[in-house]
Amino acid sequence: MTDWQEISGNVTAPRGYRAAGIKAGLKPSGLPDLALIVSDVEAIAAGVFTTSVVRAAPVDYCRQRLQSKPSARAILCNAGQANAATGSQGWIDAIESAQQLAQVLNIPSDYVLVASTGVIGQRIKMDALKAGIPQVVAALSETGGDAAAQAIITTDLVTKSIALETTIHDRPVRIGGIAKGSGMIHPNMATMLSFVTCDAAVSPSLWQQMLSRAADKSFNQITVDGDTSTNDTLIALANGQSRTPAITEMGADAEKLEAMLTAVCQYLAKAIARDGEGATCLMEVVVSGATDDKAARQVARTIAGSSLAKSAIFGRDPNWGRIAAAAGRAGVQFDQGDLQISLGNFLLMENGQPLAFDRAAASAYLKAAAAGAYLKEDTVLISVSIGNGSGFGKAWGCDLSYDYVKINAEYTT
Amino acid sequence: MTDWQEISGNVTAPRGYRAAGIKAGLKPSGLPDLALIVSDVEAIAAGVFTTSVVRAAPVDYCRQRLQSKPSARAILCNAGQANAATGSQGWIDAIESAQQLAQVLNIPSDYVLVASTGVIGQRIKMDALKAGIPQVVAALSETGGDAAAQAIITTDLVTKSIALETTIHDRPVRIGGIAKGSGMIHPNMATMLSFVTCDAAVSPSLWQQMLSRAADKSFNQITVDGDTSTNDTLIALANGQSRTPAITEMGADAEKLEAMLTAVCQYLAKAIARDGEGATCLMEVVVSGATDDKAARQVARTIAGSSLAKSAIFGRDPNWGRIAAAAGRAGVQFDQGDLQISLGNFLLMENGQPLAFDRAAASAYLKAAAAGAYLKEDTVLISVSIGNGSGFGKAWGCDLSYDYVKINAEYTT
Repeated sequence: MTDWQEISGNVTAPRGYRAAGIKAGLKPSGLPDLALIVSDVEAIAAGVFTTSVVRAAPVDYCRQRLQSKPSARAILCNAGQANAATGSQGWIDAIESAQQLAQVLNIPSDYVLVASTGVIGQRIKMDALKAGIPQVVAALSETGGDAAAQAIITTDLVTKSIALETTIHDRPVRIGGIAKGSGMIHPNMATMLSFVTCDAAVSPSLWQQMLSRAADKSFNQITVDGDTSTNDTLIALANGQSRTPAITEMGADAEKLEAMLTAVCQYLAKAIARDGEGATCLMEVVVSGATDDKAARQVARTIAGSSLAKSAIFGRDPNWGRIAAAAGRAGVQFDQGDLQISLGNFLLMENGQPLAFDRAAASAYLKAAAAGAYLKEDTVLISVSIGNGSGFGKAWGCDLSYDYVKINAEYTT
Repeated sequence: MTDWQEISGNVTAPRGYRAAGIKAGLKPSGLPDLALIVSDVEAIAAGVFTTSVVRAAPVDYCRQRLQSKPSARAILCNAGQANAATGSQGWIDAIESAQQLAQVLNIPSDYVLVASTGVIGQRIKMDALKAGIPQVVAALSETGGDAAAQAIITTDLVTKSIALETTIHDRPVRIGGIAKGSGMIHPNMATMLSFVTCDAAVSPSLWQQMLSRAADKSFNQITVDGDTSTNDTLIALANGQSRTPAITEMGADAEKLEAMLTAVCQYLAKAIARDGEGATCLMEVVVSGATDDKAARQVARTIAGSSLAKSAIFGRDPNWGRIAAAAGRAGVQFDQGDLQISLGNFLLMENGQPLAFDRAAASAYLKAAAAGAYLKEDTVLISVSIGNGSGFGKAWGCDLSYDYVKINAEYTT
């Protein structure tokens, strides 16, 4: 079905990109904490950012930058300090970081985008950052994607990266990405960040539309605890180095590119949900029969975010009532007589009424699925239909365990 | 400041009401499970119901009844089976329950309202209910409120009841209420139910408006886990037996009555939040400075419902960052430079930036407040200001503990 294949690498898999990740002394742990992604040529740049009114300085900086000129050469990301709730000084720090990097790279400063993750309320350690910038530039390489993926994580248990390749007009086109996020937001270690590179040639407005739609089907459809962060940032570059014809409007080529971009975003989003704090498995919720895709996604997201449904999955309990209740309160109108719910292949509810089913067998499915017996990896599948419409959507979450409470009650004390 | 005083009793404290609660054999535990509240005369009736599209049969029954005629003589409530997700048979059971009670009470069947709570997907045990109805009618008494409060609970650890009295035109006017709910919704033991009685004389439309506004400031402002239930029901009767002049429009008398009605609803709502599953304390969130009250309530509710903020309170951790992040994602526009956050008397954030504060002392406040050292009972106070507007709102929640996960992961397996 899919038109692409997975290839090795991530943000440096597409042509014309170099990356690096180094230890700049920003994290108290001494782990890698400064990442840089550079395109050899000016790349079209699109972004999707947190909708919170409490936003980090780099988020506002990138939004303004991309509004005035939707292109870039470099993305600089520090981990350790989120540069959120830092007032006007945070804004100055973001600008100074961009300016210094531009100077070292010998490019205009408006070609630089910046991102931060780490402790909210803490300024970036600017001395360490300034000393680190020449080093991270010196470390740039065409195989530096893994090092960059390492340098952007905070409390993540694993790095998240992917690269896919397709063919457009007989030439290979690649998209690669890295992401960080452990839980939708970690307590004080804000955030979800993702950086995507692509070597297709595409018009700025079309690239932004594609990215916004891909985010709606991926990063906006994952939930660990419902807490959107101050720093959430998704930036995607497209530098044209695949030397394929420019894509300027929707059509076969654009659809192929957008499908692959969406797949990259979904892979990274699921990796974040799977790495959710205390999670023992990924929950994939598929909703069909809605009046439109948006409504389906909303129902899916509400189920994936329900504390009761999440607790039930942790308990490997085939509790259809909690799934039905979450669907019902999602803010989407449907006839409860149309409600149908399955866990894996077990049909639990039909026509809005519970069915007799083998509870022990359904619980056994949950245990096996969470342990990775079905699908790829540890995924529990919840399928819900709410009517006869063509609206379809997916969402991903993780189960709610004792460890979630433990991590969040004790982390900072 | 307040214009009323607390008096003993609950739904039978206002004049002209009798109530009862009996063991009808509906709950497997054998505990009381059938409650009845009767007004001696026809009472004006208002209701507020779940907004979920997955609704129990009695919810639809009461909504239709009150739309056609906003008055009633009796409220019958069973505990044990929720009569939700029961299809057309559930609807028939609701109607038959009302008809049989009407027959025994010798009143028209459209004077009867019904409510159910218990396991979703289970029909009411109609044989037990039918045998119980004559018994619960025989048990009616002017001191039967406590028995009714007992018979409507399911997994609640305590009953919830209150009565207040004020003076209108030199005559006492009383409002009493009972409620059930342990968590916003217990896994399969749906629901939040509350029944309120009043002996004032008030016009139907005004009474409904007052109740809707009171619900917006009370039951709609509590959150334990964000899961709205299939059965949520608030019904309020006003029978005029105080023999005070009829209140037909807003004015001094109406404001006094509405303030007391709001206080009754807030007391019961807080009692539900405090009895939240696994809760060790109540969180009271007060938001000021919003453009209007609705916006303030929305921010308050988002903070009270944040899993991260709730986990921090459980850990007695003065984590301003999680409160700021929740305020920012509430969907209400404000300038983050105006954000101010306090825990008790500790100012943690001002002008959108963290302040230096004594973390150990603030944590000590949380420990003491949660243990009941301040305010009445075990309440932690979170105060947030988001600007210079006059909008003001409160919300209540409870902390998120290991026991919440334990109760919900293991309850039904």
